[in-house]
Amino acid sequence: MSKAHSQASDSGKPRILIVGGVAGGASCAARARRLSEKAEIILFERGPFVSFASCGLPYYVGEVIREEKNLLVTTPEIFKRRFNVEVRLRNEVLSIDKTEKVIEVKNLDTSEIYKENYDALVLSPGSSPVIPHLPGIDLPGIFTLRTIQDSNRIKTWITEKEVRQVVVVGGGFIGLEAVENLANLGLSITIVEMLPQVMPNLDPEIALRLQEHLSAKGIGLKLSDGVKQFSQAPSKKGIIVTTRLGEELNCDMVLLATGVKPEISLARQAGLEIGELNGIRVDSHMQTSDKNIWAVGDAVEVRNFISREWSLIPLAGPASRQGRIAADCILGRQSSFRGIQGTNVCSVMGLTVSSTGLSEKTLASLKNKIPFEKVYLHPGHHAGYYPGAKMITIKLLFSVPDGKILGAQAVGEEGVEKRIDIISMAIQKGATVFDLEEAEMCYAPQFGSAKDPVNMAGMVAANVLRGDSPLLHWKDLDSSRYYLLDVREPLEFKLGHVEGATNIPLPTLRARLDELPKNKEIAVYCAAGQRSYYATRILILNGFDVKNISGGFTSHKTAKPE
Amino acid sequence: MSKAHSQASDSGKPRILIVGGVAGGASCAARARRLSEKAEIILFERGPFVSFASCGLPYYVGEVIREEKNLLVTTPEIFKRRFNVEVRLRNEVLSIDKTEKVIEVKNLDTSEIYKENYDALVLSPGSSPVIPHLPGIDLPGIFTLRTIQDSNRIKTWITEKEVRQVVVVGGGFIGLEAVENLANLGLSITIVEMLPQVMPNLDPEIALRLQEHLSAKGIGLKLSDGVKQFSQAPSKKGIIVTTRLGEELNCDMVLLATGVKPEISLARQAGLEIGELNGIRVDSHMQTSDKNIWAVGDAVEVRNFISREWSLIPLAGPASRQGRIAADCILGRQSSFRGIQGTNVCSVMGLTVSSTGLSEKTLASLKNKIPFEKVYLHPGHHAGYYPGAKMITIKLLFSVPDGKILGAQAVGEEGVEKRIDIISMAIQKGATVFDLEEAEMCYAPQFGSAKDPVNMAGMVAANVLRGDSPLLHWKDLDSSRYYLLDVREPLEFKLGHVEGATNIPLPTLRARLDELPKNKEIAVYCAAGQRSYYATRILILNGFDVKNISGGFTSHKTAKPE
Repeated sequence: MSKAHSQASDSGKPRILIVGGVAGGASCAARARRLSEKAEIILFERGPFVSFASCGLPYYVGEVIREEKNLLVTTPEIFKRRFNVEVRLRNEVLSIDKTEKVIEVKNLDTSEIYKENYDALVLSPGSSPVIPHLPGIDLPGIFTLRTIQDSNRIKTWITEKEVRQVVVVGGGFIGLEAVENLANLGLSITIVEMLPQVMPNLDPEIALRLQEHLSAKGIGLKLSDGVKQFSQAPSKKGIIVTTRLGEELNCDMVLLATGVKPEISLARQAGLEIGELNGIRVDSHMQTSDKNIWAVGDAVEVRNFISREWSLIPLAGPASRQGRIAADCILGRQSSFRGIQGTNVCSVMGLTVSSTGLSEKTLASLKNKIPFEKVYLHPGHHAGYYPGAKMITIKLLFSVPDGKILGAQAVGEEGVEKRIDIISMAIQKGATVFDLEEAEMCYAPQFGSAKDPVNMAGMVAANVLRGDSPLLHWKDLDSSRYYLLDVREPLEFKLGHVEGATNIPLPTLRARLDELPKNKEIAVYCAAGQRSYYATRILILNGFDVKNISGGFTSHKTAKPE
Repeated sequence: MSKAHSQASDSGKPRILIVGGVAGGASCAARARRLSEKAEIILFERGPFVSFASCGLPYYVGEVIREEKNLLVTTPEIFKRRFNVEVRLRNEVLSIDKTEKVIEVKNLDTSEIYKENYDALVLSPGSSPVIPHLPGIDLPGIFTLRTIQDSNRIKTWITEKEVRQVVVVGGGFIGLEAVENLANLGLSITIVEMLPQVMPNLDPEIALRLQEHLSAKGIGLKLSDGVKQFSQAPSKKGIIVTTRLGEELNCDMVLLATGVKPEISLARQAGLEIGELNGIRVDSHMQTSDKNIWAVGDAVEVRNFISREWSLIPLAGPASRQGRIAADCILGRQSSFRGIQGTNVCSVMGLTVSSTGLSEKTLASLKNKIPFEKVYLHPGHHAGYYPGAKMITIKLLFSVPDGKILGAQAVGEEGVEKRIDIISMAIQKGATVFDLEEAEMCYAPQFGSAKDPVNMAGMVAANVLRGDSPLLHWKDLDSSRYYLLDVREPLEFKLGHVEGATNIPLPTLRARLDELPKNKEIAVYCAAGQRSYYATRILILNGFDVKNISGGFTSHKTAKPE
């Protein structure tokens, strides 16, 4: 059976159909209603829920969020009563006829297929987990974590099979959030990741601190390795994960967290333009290549805010903003999306890792290169004199010579995402590292310092740009070229130093200048970069040729040369 | 004995004298050395410590910071060895001869008086506690808290006198931080404050939440009252504080926290320009009215970043920035201070209160008025579906009609100072409420929401400026003019509502439009302002004349009409 519900639309009563009921779709529907009481708005969702909290799923598995209903941000009833939006759950949109402006829908419960015409169509199909084509991939006990149903299946499996050992395939956001939560349940976990690092959005030296933390917490970490196959354990209880490097990992459950890809089948069928990253192409008004079709959320390619290059960054905040923008534009307002910065945060077993803007890896891969520099620092998250200060490792990337902030990454136990949020706001306003220097941040000793880590990051970078502190990175340290100077105290030096370094503690430096070479470049380091900056200034002002090694010995430990 | 240590300065070897060794002076000395190895730099401090953590004093009294030495950021020895700066503790600068460029100094240990000439003089004298001239003010057991010595005296008194009851006079930063710490020690506390609110930098309706919290924690609160006199208790143990309203408060100790005033005696003696706020006048390079004298820190008047009017805001972060700027300018760099935003934070017994920019009170007092509007909101500090979300009350002030952010105040248990820091960064870059709407903040459910409180604040304000949600404040609610509509659920209404309100729950609103008056303005509220915004949109689009009451019933409870 196939029929068109043909409520004709008049100009004052547009018919808006929305495909997909999570972040982008739901926000679009609600916004559209706020702009028009007359519009007819129907939201189609092939799943059994509308607007659920997908970012909460790992915590639901980990029983931090106790009840399924807590994940349900809203219901079709609320949507109807509050927004006068009709939500059709378990109704899958099969195809789009963009000439006739009609979609074909299947009711998954009744198998009825029917048509609906539209004045405006919004696609918010989201993304789906990447499932690798591997032998044994269909074995029971192998899961993805994308829906509430997935979560319930995992929870049931863990209980019923008395799961002890889990292999998590993939060390990105979902993988690591799952690790934290599965570990909370007392499970033993091994991560298998094809890349040489976890969290591929980070640069490797920042990810290294996460990796050390995971190892210290007893999480198995198989990097630069992938899965070759899954097989049933001989006992019939459990799964054997065979890695490409030949390891065999026994477990009771596998979680596939190998990333997501945009759901573009409907857009492709409709002949909408698809970008080079396999996302739906939209303009800044979220309009697709068809003037009556908009698209939002994980499925679309948007411009990176900084590089203006196309990017695919699946995040809930931007998806919900895009939904509102699409609704605005459909109903006659000229809202536009400014581009995506990719601001994100992840909690990993007591560490927080967060970033915004471009990574060094992304900067290196840009088509239109931006000249940039980077600095590392390791400030306390609040004043050192107040008990409990925790080190935050910060990497700040900025353009040269103007100092415009390009990106920042931070990892630590406390106060991490706060600094990234501040820098994210700065980036949106085109701020430079000189602005970070001057930023006026909250200071009481339990919250920050008179020089907040954000100020410090700006100061370190500004010192480089002003030429006050010429910069060297560990990976560029050519031991034949540089005289390596360690200005820490003798005890610190004794406890560990870089091979070939000479120890002249900062307080004695002025008195010992004649020990230093006049005709060789000096590379100086301390613990984190502050004393070596002071030393750099002393040496420059005394006529030496000197560079300050960014991030000091702390960065040397976490940024081993590749 | 009086002699001039007359090391003549040559142009390449300026002689820089710095008066005052805490935040501003210490940072100036260190910065000057980083710019010149040849300069002679001497720092005079009349107290026994250089660069101590004055913001830590309340926590030292409260034994959160256990040891005095933790408060000592640096020592004269470190200053000498690290910065080649001579620090003369317990040396008080008595006078300045700005024509001869000579200062007169008294060594407080030897009583020797001597002179020093300078090329550049930097004044960083700080501020001193305001001590009211009241009968009994000199009784033992009455303290101020400004130095390490003050702290030690208080600690000794508490122990030796077995203090149980304390009266804190003044409910500003120092008073409230002291309250938190004295309460930690198990002491019973009453605050006496002349103003009708604590935290005078905040607007009263925001301070009210603090006041309720203090009362709930068992702190006595005597607002709109002051001290008339102190007298010895008849038992000779303890003090009686008699208030202006005639109350008699028995206690074992009094802490005076009635504010600070700039230390300007030296500047005044030298004939430097003093501003209308009784601070030392400086230009944006921190230069005083004398071209060889700079001044920084609590003692100076600086321009407010937003209003450009003169202001006195004693904060450590700006003081240390100003110190560096003075050093830069002395040594030939054209750094300048951008102005002060007054970003601050205070922890009060489990609540955090924080603000940046201008308050409504300050806006009302400006000479050059800025047309402004304000909104209130009460979002959770992270996603509601993740356990433990705490309400933050936010007040956002912005200019009309351009939406430029003028100030923000926030109070809550968690995530408060983060939002203020983000808004502080936004203000520095001239951001508008429309920028806050678009800000891309970190989101994972334990850190924030897909719509962060910062976004929410921007959206609520932008809705007002776009005309989407005409605004009404509780204090402007004229019950004869408005039909008052409560769109919460019946149970919420039953538990408490505003007198005269009619309850039509949002989900039933569309069906009950004919119950609403067509020829009278409607004022609508819900719990916090979101549902009433939805109702406002429904009513506007259906032709009603409607205003949304900012902050909803939550704000009504905390913002009683004056």
